[in-house]
Amino acid sequence: MTKQQALNLLYEKIQVGNALGLASSIIHWDAATLGVPEKSLADRGAAIGWIGGESFRRFMALDTIEAIETLEAVKGELNNYESAMIYVFGKAYRKAKAIPQEEFEAFQALTAEAQAVWETARKKCDYDMMQPYYEKVFDYQRRLCDWYGYENHPYDALLDDYERGANVEMLDSFFSALREKIVPLLKDIIAKDNQPKEIKGLFDISKQRELMPWLTDFAGYDRTRGKVGEVEHPFCTTITLDDVRITTMYHEDNLMSALFSTIHECGHAIYQQNMNAELVKHGLADGSSMGVHESQSRLYENMICRSKAFTEILLPKLQEKFDYFKDWDVDSLYRSVNIARPSLIRIEADELTYSLHVMVRYELEKKLVTGEIKVSDLPKLWADKYEEILGIRPDTLANGVLQDVHWSAGYVGYFPSYAVGTAYGSQLMNTIKKSIDINAAIKNADISPITKWLKENVHSKGQTLSPDELLKQSTGESFNPKYYVDYLEEKFRNLYLK
Amino acid sequence: MTKQQALNLLYEKIQVGNALGLASSIIHWDAATLGVPEKSLADRGAAIGWIGGESFRRFMALDTIEAIETLEAVKGELNNYESAMIYVFGKAYRKAKAIPQEEFEAFQALTAEAQAVWETARKKCDYDMMQPYYEKVFDYQRRLCDWYGYENHPYDALLDDYERGANVEMLDSFFSALREKIVPLLKDIIAKDNQPKEIKGLFDISKQRELMPWLTDFAGYDRTRGKVGEVEHPFCTTITLDDVRITTMYHEDNLMSALFSTIHECGHAIYQQNMNAELVKHGLADGSSMGVHESQSRLYENMICRSKAFTEILLPKLQEKFDYFKDWDVDSLYRSVNIARPSLIRIEADELTYSLHVMVRYELEKKLVTGEIKVSDLPKLWADKYEEILGIRPDTLANGVLQDVHWSAGYVGYFPSYAVGTAYGSQLMNTIKKSIDINAAIKNADISPITKWLKENVHSKGQTLSPDELLKQSTGESFNPKYYVDYLEEKFRNLYLK
Repeated sequence: MTKQQALNLLYEKIQVGNALGLASSIIHWDAATLGVPEKSLADRGAAIGWIGGESFRRFMALDTIEAIETLEAVKGELNNYESAMIYVFGKAYRKAKAIPQEEFEAFQALTAEAQAVWETARKKCDYDMMQPYYEKVFDYQRRLCDWYGYENHPYDALLDDYERGANVEMLDSFFSALREKIVPLLKDIIAKDNQPKEIKGLFDISKQRELMPWLTDFAGYDRTRGKVGEVEHPFCTTITLDDVRITTMYHEDNLMSALFSTIHECGHAIYQQNMNAELVKHGLADGSSMGVHESQSRLYENMICRSKAFTEILLPKLQEKFDYFKDWDVDSLYRSVNIARPSLIRIEADELTYSLHVMVRYELEKKLVTGEIKVSDLPKLWADKYEEILGIRPDTLANGVLQDVHWSAGYVGYFPSYAVGTAYGSQLMNTIKKSIDINAAIKNADISPITKWLKENVHSKGQTLSPDELLKQSTGESFNPKYYVDYLEEKFRNLYLK
Repeated sequence: MTKQQALNLLYEKIQVGNALGLASSIIHWDAATLGVPEKSLADRGAAIGWIGGESFRRFMALDTIEAIETLEAVKGELNNYESAMIYVFGKAYRKAKAIPQEEFEAFQALTAEAQAVWETARKKCDYDMMQPYYEKVFDYQRRLCDWYGYENHPYDALLDDYERGANVEMLDSFFSALREKIVPLLKDIIAKDNQPKEIKGLFDISKQRELMPWLTDFAGYDRTRGKVGEVEHPFCTTITLDDVRITTMYHEDNLMSALFSTIHECGHAIYQQNMNAELVKHGLADGSSMGVHESQSRLYENMICRSKAFTEILLPKLQEKFDYFKDWDVDSLYRSVNIARPSLIRIEADELTYSLHVMVRYELEKKLVTGEIKVSDLPKLWADKYEEILGIRPDTLANGVLQDVHWSAGYVGYFPSYAVGTAYGSQLMNTIKKSIDINAAIKNADISPITKWLKENVHSKGQTLSPDELLKQSTGESFNPKYYVDYLEEKFRNLYLK
């Protein structure tokens, strides 16, 4: 196989993968926005299964690795896109190949069943139902560490699936910093007991909806190159780089959840919309990592839109639509969108405590993978960790160890990306603010200088850079949790302890 | 290859075809209901192209015909589904194989271009733009007749692609019957000049929308096994047999177009919803032919919903929503939804004249295929035919020879299905009325006995029967245009000439 033949073969496989991926994404969007007739689920599931399987089968064919090895042998002649393509696909191929075929298939079947069981177990608060599945999942994950191989800690092998280059050493230092600074800060806030006024009322959904174009335009989401849908659980999906769709959910009694979840999805969507076409051809049109993708959504949601500057422009918009806000001032609104307090459910957690929820999971997963703790002890260990870190114990298993779908879906090593990503965002913003007056841009309702910086340094790079390379190139240093800790400390000390 | 291996191979290919078909259908639905960002068209088109091509490539592989031949050799051992599968797929395979690969590909490229040119040519009323494309299309179609082969008339080879078993002999006799009875009937109606009052006004679209659940429920469309969308050009699409979707378009100034096009699509959808799962596995879950599918949509639209019985139950519903109808009576409404008069545009034609528009196209296509007439003479020949059959000449080319997309898309032999299908419907209804009181069922707003008959005799059969077999089994005789001509004569003589 010549270099050109190898490149063409990979390009062709990627093009087919893109076609099948487009189909999967539209099918998913369709189901989420319109629902699926119950009787149609099986036929639809079979089609989705074939489409996903075909993508995998084509990728795992022997000519893929032949092409990769051909190109690895001429590394010096490859451009940036080609090198990144070989790196990303070579690693994915070898990892997938490391898993015995029958083990892989058995695990797919196990997690399909486990997710259905989890739905019921959570509703019934029945850990006994779930325990045998979790045991099999973690048993498989332990073997997966060996199949993948690792240098220092077995958990490193799993982390890399979600967060390229992440490892226990890095995460221990990250969560230590949070434990040292944020856990005591939360305790001080609880002790001070000066919680702000909450936004409580019923907000007409059609009026909520009317706010969205203003909000997505503010964020810089290009509505002519995408769509906004309504679903139960919001997400962002890329059909093509010029058709990146976001979704929102509306609750009459929770105006802020629609606003902030929309901004969150805008962050993901802008990342995708700002990629360049060359990435598509090379199969690199996605975030550098799960964490880097999350860094963008949380940067827009928290650092930009939960700022005081943003509440200054948000308040008049709210007052235009809802009488409820007529007596509110900027300071009350700013405080009310930044309530910080211990809670039980990760996905409902506030900006300050979110990463502490992740810390609970990180510390448990790490020891589950080594066998230091047992699945049978999880409910108690979970509750103890929540008490230790957040100061409260779950009232029910549904609000405790059974709240997340991840383990039943076979995702072990995924949680840390949420927290690390948020921290990447702070590191990026720390650099951005050296050249751009962020508050002025927000108050001016024109954050395009920020987005332009992110496009140049993050979005346009796609998967050509690892998170570490990306941070080094754009901020001049490797990941440093200091910026995140400092940011949280400054913001929440000012809000609660002054 | 054993019999069982051959069956399994075909089942597997059909399952993959179904998966790819589901993806194509959802992608099409998504584009039609939501629109596609212009910049995304190319990437989306590439994906659609690959999906459709893959289906075709897998079907055309050598093992397909090996499996078909294996099963043809043991015909006597096959059940009904298996026999029909071998017949349908064997014929499709051999027809596709008969076309030289490079000719097929060149024609795909030609029609892709021709359709885009047609959009412009129609807008500009510029036949010179279109003529070279039509020449190439008909030139290809003439060669296609030879590749396919035929016994009597070359056009027969093309007709069979759309209407299994249709041929010039049958269509000549069908259109002769129309020419003999319906052309003079239309002349009499024009001469009598007692056109009914037209429905003219602006009808709030949200109120139009409110009527639809009542209407689709009346028709028997199962909304729990489908969806209703809004588009510019209504269609019905099958995602799975339990997710059959219809679409409607609304115009403030044209209430009736929304109502009747919805019923029309319901007719298609009910056909699909009433098929059985065994058909899916055998790749036979579609109409017996294009014409039989159209027979169902037009039967619901015209024979059921343009009946006097239906206007009796429609009028109170309209009066509930729109003041406009407060002084209308059943007779006026019945007459106003049955306006019959010559017109220029096929897709806007009324029940009486619709098949006359098709006759124009049939007579021209037949002679274009043999070379008796030339593409360059079409604008004049078209106008002459309209004058001869409908009594009017097109005012513009857009309202004349350039009105249909079919020829630019390469569909030659398609038009007759529209008319023949409508006539099948009359033949079916003629049998139904022997055992069911159709008017009573409609007035009672419960047409389930009619639908049950259609399900048993038409819908549940899918592609296991040819149109002719289907008519013989359900009505006791082959296609006979008499029922259609009699139905039109009786209905429109009563309306206009009494």
